[in-house]
Amino acid sequence: MAVSEFNDTFLRACRLEPTDYTPVWFMRQAGRYMPEYRALRDKYDVLTLTRTPELAAEISLQPVRALGVDAAILFADIMLVPIAMGVDVKIVDSVGPVLDEPVDSRATIERLHQFARTDIEYLRRTIQILRGELKIPLIGFSGAPFTLASYLIEGAPSRTWLKTKRFMYEQPKLWHELMDKLTGAIIFYLHEQVDAGAQALQLFDSWVGALSPADFREFVLPYNRRIFTALEDTGVPRIAFGTDTAGILADFADIDCEVIGLDWRQDLAQVRRLFPDKAIQGNLDPAVLASGWKATEHQTAQILKSLRNRRGFIFNLGHGVWKDADPETLRRLVDYVHAH
Amino acid sequence: MAVSEFNDTFLRACRLEPTDYTPVWFMRQAGRYMPEYRALRDKYDVLTLTRTPELAAEISLQPVRALGVDAAILFADIMLVPIAMGVDVKIVDSVGPVLDEPVDSRATIERLHQFARTDIEYLRRTIQILRGELKIPLIGFSGAPFTLASYLIEGAPSRTWLKTKRFMYEQPKLWHELMDKLTGAIIFYLHEQVDAGAQALQLFDSWVGALSPADFREFVLPYNRRIFTALEDTGVPRIAFGTDTAGILADFADIDCEVIGLDWRQDLAQVRRLFPDKAIQGNLDPAVLASGWKATEHQTAQILKSLRNRRGFIFNLGHGVWKDADPETLRRLVDYVHAH
Repeated sequence: MAVSEFNDTFLRACRLEPTDYTPVWFMRQAGRYMPEYRALRDKYDVLTLTRTPELAAEISLQPVRALGVDAAILFADIMLVPIAMGVDVKIVDSVGPVLDEPVDSRATIERLHQFARTDIEYLRRTIQILRGELKIPLIGFSGAPFTLASYLIEGAPSRTWLKTKRFMYEQPKLWHELMDKLTGAIIFYLHEQVDAGAQALQLFDSWVGALSPADFREFVLPYNRRIFTALEDTGVPRIAFGTDTAGILADFADIDCEVIGLDWRQDLAQVRRLFPDKAIQGNLDPAVLASGWKATEHQTAQILKSLRNRRGFIFNLGHGVWKDADPETLRRLVDYVHAH
Repeated sequence: MAVSEFNDTFLRACRLEPTDYTPVWFMRQAGRYMPEYRALRDKYDVLTLTRTPELAAEISLQPVRALGVDAAILFADIMLVPIAMGVDVKIVDSVGPVLDEPVDSRATIERLHQFARTDIEYLRRTIQILRGELKIPLIGFSGAPFTLASYLIEGAPSRTWLKTKRFMYEQPKLWHELMDKLTGAIIFYLHEQVDAGAQALQLFDSWVGALSPADFREFVLPYNRRIFTALEDTGVPRIAFGTDTAGILADFADIDCEVIGLDWRQDLAQVRRLFPDKAIQGNLDPAVLASGWKATEHQTAQILKSLRNRRGFIFNLGHGVWKDADPETLRRLVDYVHAH
């Protein structure tokens, strides 16, 4: 393959450089909405898929072939970091990550250990396979410390984060120790991904919107900042994504990153004015995709029209694709964004 | 009782008038965290409690006696409006409102009927009893159209609102018919409450934060505006409360109300600058209450300190009290806000 065949539109948008069209990819673009993925899931559990390089690479490539997106994202699970740190995690269908022994004490935090390259050799191998196949950039990623900490402390997905917040308020010293350990592990994990070939990195802070601005600043922001600063030496674009961040977004100005990823609860145009020197990624409500092409086209047109200048804009959803989405709607959506 | 015994601090704060201290009340201040309430719930289901004037009045008074708050709120359920409109709703313990026949068609919307004073006579009677007992203002309330519509369409509490959004996108005409009907019913319901004696009104839009700003403006805001405008003739302070509204709050400027109620995801001081002519109510994260007095005191001090001027400020939580809260922590919190 000639180097000239490589389509770097996504990377150029991350760096605020001019592009021929608006690049697009989708969070969780590999997943249960695709028949090709479901066929593999019928045979293997999620963790086996993520830890078998040939299968993880194949799954990462499925949406690239089917949809024509401008970036691939490594197929992995955000719990791979805690698992590499020694936590016993089960991924339960229709529930999510479940722990028999949630983190609740100094002893459970001390059991978490930093890990080595050999513990994630499968991930490096997946990335190497993908780089051999892809003609578009490959995005690596990790869950952010707060989101991982909340899974570890709750022991199962929560919509109130009550145990997490109690731990944070009642045992702030242990909280900071836990966040510090996760932060170190995440930095190592993301460095390894770039070393193996990842060409951009996204930190997913899916649950950070559960916090008040004051709590975010005190208990979370220093760790997210540390991660992004530590990744500067990778030279790849860094994407800071969180859901439900409208009330804390001003603090993202302190994060050293190239791209801000947004969910659908904010006006893109307003956020652009707040961050004129960063690229912006988002933000179609993934629920729209379950309502067919007409609704999808209408809302996408609204998003595109809201931006006067599309330099430094990457089209995406506001969160991951849901299993109810129609792959054909996603394919048309890619074409539509490219054409408009 | 002499008129002078009536403590109108809360009403004065709603109107941006000077007060001797910062008034405080709590959303869901009557509820399962109180042993007195649980004793009644052991004998009666929720709907019986809300529709039996002597019991509903007693429950409304429990937190007034136990905590020393500056306003009482009518004990009622947001599903009383749909129930009065003919919907068959069950309130299932630890789940919430459940419908055997969710709203999904023109026929199910047409079955919703406007109701009459006689259908909510129990509510008027509860309010009359309370006004005879209370020396602080009584707040009436209703669920907002979006929040009620989402319960009706989902058929059960949802955290994705996928059915609601699909209905809204795929059948916008029916959506607007449903919202129009709910809006008319809510206006009648709130007028009746003031006619019976309620001295302030709050509209609870608990789930509106699930929407994008564009969807909020198109599918919801016109109805909330209509409700508040229609209530101007009551002369009582009107409180517009929603959770997760940071991304849509600027649009609240179009709502004709005296008070903006906020959850914990926004900085109060910022919101004050956005709405210099409105009172502000909020916004301690209710999760803090489950973490004991020290955390509660710390976070409350932060909130109070963040406001340079406390005229037009009403202290509250960011959402309802959770069943894990300790009544003693709430009692100390009231004293603390009054003293600081």
